[in-house]
Amino acid sequence: MSVLIVGTTALDSIKTPKAENPRLLGGSASHAAVAASFFSPVKLVGGVGEDFPKKYIELYRKHKIDLAGLQFLPGKTFHWSGEYELNMNNRRTLATELGVIETFSPKLPKALQNVPFVLLGNIAPALQISVLEQMNQPKFVVADSMDLWLNIALDDLLRLLPRIDGFVLNDSEAHQLTKEDNVFAAIKKIHKLGPKYVIIKKGSHGSVLSGPKGFFICPAYPLHHVVDPTGAGDSFVGGMMGYLASAKGSIDANIRRAMVYGSVTASFCCEGFGLNATTKTKRADIEKRVKELEKLTRF
Amino acid sequence: MSVLIVGTTALDSIKTPKAENPRLLGGSASHAAVAASFFSPVKLVGGVGEDFPKKYIELYRKHKIDLAGLQFLPGKTFHWSGEYELNMNNRRTLATELGVIETFSPKLPKALQNVPFVLLGNIAPALQISVLEQMNQPKFVVADSMDLWLNIALDDLLRLLPRIDGFVLNDSEAHQLTKEDNVFAAIKKIHKLGPKYVIIKKGSHGSVLSGPKGFFICPAYPLHHVVDPTGAGDSFVGGMMGYLASAKGSIDANIRRAMVYGSVTASFCCEGFGLNATTKTKRADIEKRVKELEKLTRF
Repeated sequence: MSVLIVGTTALDSIKTPKAENPRLLGGSASHAAVAASFFSPVKLVGGVGEDFPKKYIELYRKHKIDLAGLQFLPGKTFHWSGEYELNMNNRRTLATELGVIETFSPKLPKALQNVPFVLLGNIAPALQISVLEQMNQPKFVVADSMDLWLNIALDDLLRLLPRIDGFVLNDSEAHQLTKEDNVFAAIKKIHKLGPKYVIIKKGSHGSVLSGPKGFFICPAYPLHHVVDPTGAGDSFVGGMMGYLASAKGSIDANIRRAMVYGSVTASFCCEGFGLNATTKTKRADIEKRVKELEKLTRF
Repeated sequence: MSVLIVGTTALDSIKTPKAENPRLLGGSASHAAVAASFFSPVKLVGGVGEDFPKKYIELYRKHKIDLAGLQFLPGKTFHWSGEYELNMNNRRTLATELGVIETFSPKLPKALQNVPFVLLGNIAPALQISVLEQMNQPKFVVADSMDLWLNIALDDLLRLLPRIDGFVLNDSEAHQLTKEDNVFAAIKKIHKLGPKYVIIKKGSHGSVLSGPKGFFICPAYPLHHVVDPTGAGDSFVGGMMGYLASAKGSIDANIRRAMVYGSVTASFCCEGFGLNATTKTKRADIEKRVKELEKLTRF
């Protein structure tokens, strides 16, 4: 089955202590869409400006991403630039130029309104709701978010949560949302806000799922060297949704394995700048790491 | 088989935002010995002062811990007092009264010199070496440590590392020792200092083993409420060594499962002040959580 993915389609200028990479293809939708494309057909919903490089359209096409929902708008593409510290964990934003994303409003062509799997990637919660309202009873809807929306659009986010099946956030955001330090206490409170499935991302410590079948502790693939973690969270949730859409059987029967596929796809994302390493990855590379993770966690 | 455990035998006064508990039984050897006692006979090596309460001797005896290596010394028992913040992750030391531990020197009775499994619990590395030098070719030796020894006794620690089989430390100590932010890069450097097995503790994120058979990602048991984490790391390594000493077959065949048993034993430790929850635990409670962890990590 197909996955519809909405989020930002951006240009990222990323600085690390070792290198500087201007105007890479980035944004939550780009990372999630490429990650999901390893497993299922993807329909991208987003907006880019007149300066959006043709080579990035070709990159989407190479991954067979359906661009019927991608709007080409007058103005400049959303541009983020940031800098990582030596430990690659702390980053600071150098500049954010919203460009076309400031007025972007997702419009779904008819053909996209019946897609069964929906990933509301990280973008303003009002836009996530707007996409949902244009959909025709999707089978499974997951939303991702970020601290920015907890700070400036909490009401919208709280309106979104009862309308989705799964919510993905990182541990510091879960703490911010619930005021609970303990991750399992936080999860309990987040379930009460609506979602049946809550997934907490913990970076290199892996992730935790809480769903109708209880908890799942999902490992991160052991990386000895991180080149650029930008987009890893988007790749995780994109890979997860792509795998879920490809799998036969119930969500509960597949979601653990889907998280592991997401985790492995995210590991490749971290090994190059922007989408450089992800786009070079083959499905067989992913399968190999999933098998390794199986061995690394058995006792 | 038996496990010999050396470390501190202390009185801990622990303050949390919710309660104050003076002069609990504590110290690395006490926590590790009780944890190991669920699985194997334990020989304790340590030193206490004249003020050491009789009820704590009875507690050791209840766990069938052999006290032939426990010295009763003139002076006061080592006393630590500390305070935890609301999130139970950050703690600060309020006072440290070394007492008899200042001049304590482990002396092993003949009967203890042939014990096959040795846990050099957290205590000055010079004392850990002194115990090793009194032993007669033990089968498997693991040492634990803490940031204090990295700061004030690094040379002794570096002399110890080539003489042990396994080294256990937490992620911030691994970073401090190797200057590597990436935990897997740090592990590589620690192997070069001697130990064939390196175990990195990551608190509620679990732990990672690196050994001759590769990595193992060991989960932490999901706790919804932590009462007092003091001694959790000692319980982890104590439970692990106790299980290893009880298991048939090679170290490599058993060490993953041993870490899971250690992890579960540590989870009980966190559910009460000092050793309160651990001493109430039954082997069957441990088995139940180990089975749960198996289910929580399978995909």
